[in-house]
Amino acid sequence: MEFSAGMTESHHPTVSGFRFGATHSGVKSDGGLDLGVIVADEPVSVAAMFTKNRVRAAPVELSMQRVERGRAQAIVVNSGNANACTGKKGMEDAKVITSIVADELGVADDMVLMASTGVIGQPLPSERIEQALPGLLKAATPEQIDPFSRAILTTDRWPKVSSIKFPIGADQEATVLGVAKGAGMIHPDMATTLAFILTDAPMHSSFLKRALHTAVEKTFNLMTVDGCTSTNDSVFAMSSSTVPVEPLRGSDRDARRFIDALVDVLGELGKRIVQDGEGAQHVVQLEVQGAPSEEAAKKVAEQIARSLLVKAAIYGRDPNWGRIMAAAGMAGVAFDPSKVEIKFGKVTVVKKGMSAGREAEEEARRVMAEPSYTIRLKLGPGKAKSTYTFCDIGEDYIRLNAAYRS
Amino acid sequence: MEFSAGMTESHHPTVSGFRFGATHSGVKSDGGLDLGVIVADEPVSVAAMFTKNRVRAAPVELSMQRVERGRAQAIVVNSGNANACTGKKGMEDAKVITSIVADELGVADDMVLMASTGVIGQPLPSERIEQALPGLLKAATPEQIDPFSRAILTTDRWPKVSSIKFPIGADQEATVLGVAKGAGMIHPDMATTLAFILTDAPMHSSFLKRALHTAVEKTFNLMTVDGCTSTNDSVFAMSSSTVPVEPLRGSDRDARRFIDALVDVLGELGKRIVQDGEGAQHVVQLEVQGAPSEEAAKKVAEQIARSLLVKAAIYGRDPNWGRIMAAAGMAGVAFDPSKVEIKFGKVTVVKKGMSAGREAEEEARRVMAEPSYTIRLKLGPGKAKSTYTFCDIGEDYIRLNAAYRS
Repeated sequence: MEFSAGMTESHHPTVSGFRFGATHSGVKSDGGLDLGVIVADEPVSVAAMFTKNRVRAAPVELSMQRVERGRAQAIVVNSGNANACTGKKGMEDAKVITSIVADELGVADDMVLMASTGVIGQPLPSERIEQALPGLLKAATPEQIDPFSRAILTTDRWPKVSSIKFPIGADQEATVLGVAKGAGMIHPDMATTLAFILTDAPMHSSFLKRALHTAVEKTFNLMTVDGCTSTNDSVFAMSSSTVPVEPLRGSDRDARRFIDALVDVLGELGKRIVQDGEGAQHVVQLEVQGAPSEEAAKKVAEQIARSLLVKAAIYGRDPNWGRIMAAAGMAGVAFDPSKVEIKFGKVTVVKKGMSAGREAEEEARRVMAEPSYTIRLKLGPGKAKSTYTFCDIGEDYIRLNAAYRS
Repeated sequence: MEFSAGMTESHHPTVSGFRFGATHSGVKSDGGLDLGVIVADEPVSVAAMFTKNRVRAAPVELSMQRVERGRAQAIVVNSGNANACTGKKGMEDAKVITSIVADELGVADDMVLMASTGVIGQPLPSERIEQALPGLLKAATPEQIDPFSRAILTTDRWPKVSSIKFPIGADQEATVLGVAKGAGMIHPDMATTLAFILTDAPMHSSFLKRALHTAVEKTFNLMTVDGCTSTNDSVFAMSSSTVPVEPLRGSDRDARRFIDALVDVLGELGKRIVQDGEGAQHVVQLEVQGAPSEEAAKKVAEQIARSLLVKAAIYGRDPNWGRIMAAAGMAGVAFDPSKVEIKFGKVTVVKKGMSAGREAEEEARRVMAEPSYTIRLKLGPGKAKSTYTFCDIGEDYIRLNAAYRS
């Protein structure tokens, strides 16, 4: 597999059957790119997952309904305004905008999906978006992945693109491309994660949906910056199905390869989102092992990853394992504290639930100076494990999130 | 009712049947008070509630067993060391210490309870405590509430004492006195809350237990600083039963007066604990109203009170109601976002789930400059409500909790 990094200026592979566009429509006041589109050459398979938050933005409500059909031809995305808590006007705005895209493409309204990200509770300046759309659609090309990836950002420090090519059928090759925005929360209400996955591997929407759920459970649902979900979180996946092989199904070799590729791309995007957590200096891979079940391992990992005291210790490079023990103990999972082992990198700091000594802690401090490292917690004799990705919370996070909205 | 504040130098009322002592034994390296005792003149009714954390300190394990009998005569408390994650030695230390107290008092070992607070995972310097105990017990008097209240502190900014006198029987008076330590977390692992409630109102331990549970549910269990529970959280209640009236039972007038007094004392202690949250500048009373059930109201309140984004906005004095909406939406409670109303103090900032305008937000900023204020969230047409007390999280919290352990 060929892995293409997205943090540097790179040439992302195109995905047959898809075009991209990006422009400044005027939602953002700083002149930056704030409107993007992904357009398929014809109706394609689509699946999506949305925020479980009870408060959902208008574009989320609209897309949730439309994606049920399993077919779509375009996604329009604006940044700078979440179009959430905007009442009837918010929904009307989303409908008018998607309707303009549909008219331009000559398809039914419900073949167009929408995503928004930005400040909650302010009316969308929709007429600016409406005016920009015809030109944006005409200018869309297969190559403009990079501008699109920047048009969906809010306060992220860098764009997030990841792609993989993998062999499929007898002698063909397929691509999975992912573009995401993260949780750089300088301005408020932007805990929003948006992600767009595109592939040319052939499949029906039912398979795509299953594959997306499987991959998201293993990646996006095992990471946290600050434990907050937003009104706008959405992950879309579309397949142009242009690679001339049998549609993927079940769990044959090609299906497994596609799911692996999806996990890799979403995992890579996820890691970049955590890295880009506001003010984050350390990304920690937390492995909880020896649990009675995977569910139990995940619960323990989540409590640790969400603990503000643990996050502050990571920020302070303090191997303060007592906080990890206490966070694990909050998970509602049965375990024997006197059997617990904790490692920072390769350094064992807790043995049989007790300190392995001052010297080990000093070594652990050196591990914690790294921008990225692993913490392993062995709960007991169980066989199950779970891995969670999280970051520290530093003074910058508080400073930036306390700042007045502009 | 006479309400006695504990933040200023005040003369706390004694509680008939109880003596207090405090000393520096050497657990704390700074020479401060680090060992306290509460001694009853004879065996008294006792009840307690302990941390639900799976990882429990040795004194918690020991006291959990012993309190089951419903009778006790003394509680010994050390600060500066949690005696948690200390293996067999930790439990042996707790047993030896309580045994020395029992010998000095001439009672059975299991009539003595223990509580500890401080750093997790370091062996307790128990010989220092053991040596200090005989002198400490001899010097105990009914008046030394203030030294005791300081001996149980770790990094709290001030001691926390609250008391109430209330009429009981035909012409008698009873006292409820509460002493607590809070969550001032300059040093790590001190999210610990310890609280000690003493009364001379007569009752059996079964009634005391029920009253304590009722009052804790209404007070301590409706507040949060950082969402972290500790290995040592304990609330003890003892009744000397010296007031010569019928023992309290059921829900008659005196029983209700006692429970009201308990709620007032625990509520006051709880508010001071939140005020003393590390770096906290604002205490917020969050009232969630219009919920389908009290349980639903509490869930929504807890999500908001625990949201790091909300806490940062409180710190930044930004009436960022979108974060409150998003946090409410995470609670797993069904509500219609378009019916939500939010008030900061008397200022309505959200009507029908939408912004009440810029001007209202400007007014709300003025409310948020106060050290203490109320946020009211009306979910819908329901009748149930719940009130939660929480504080902001500022840069100081992170700075102090990131600092290396000394």
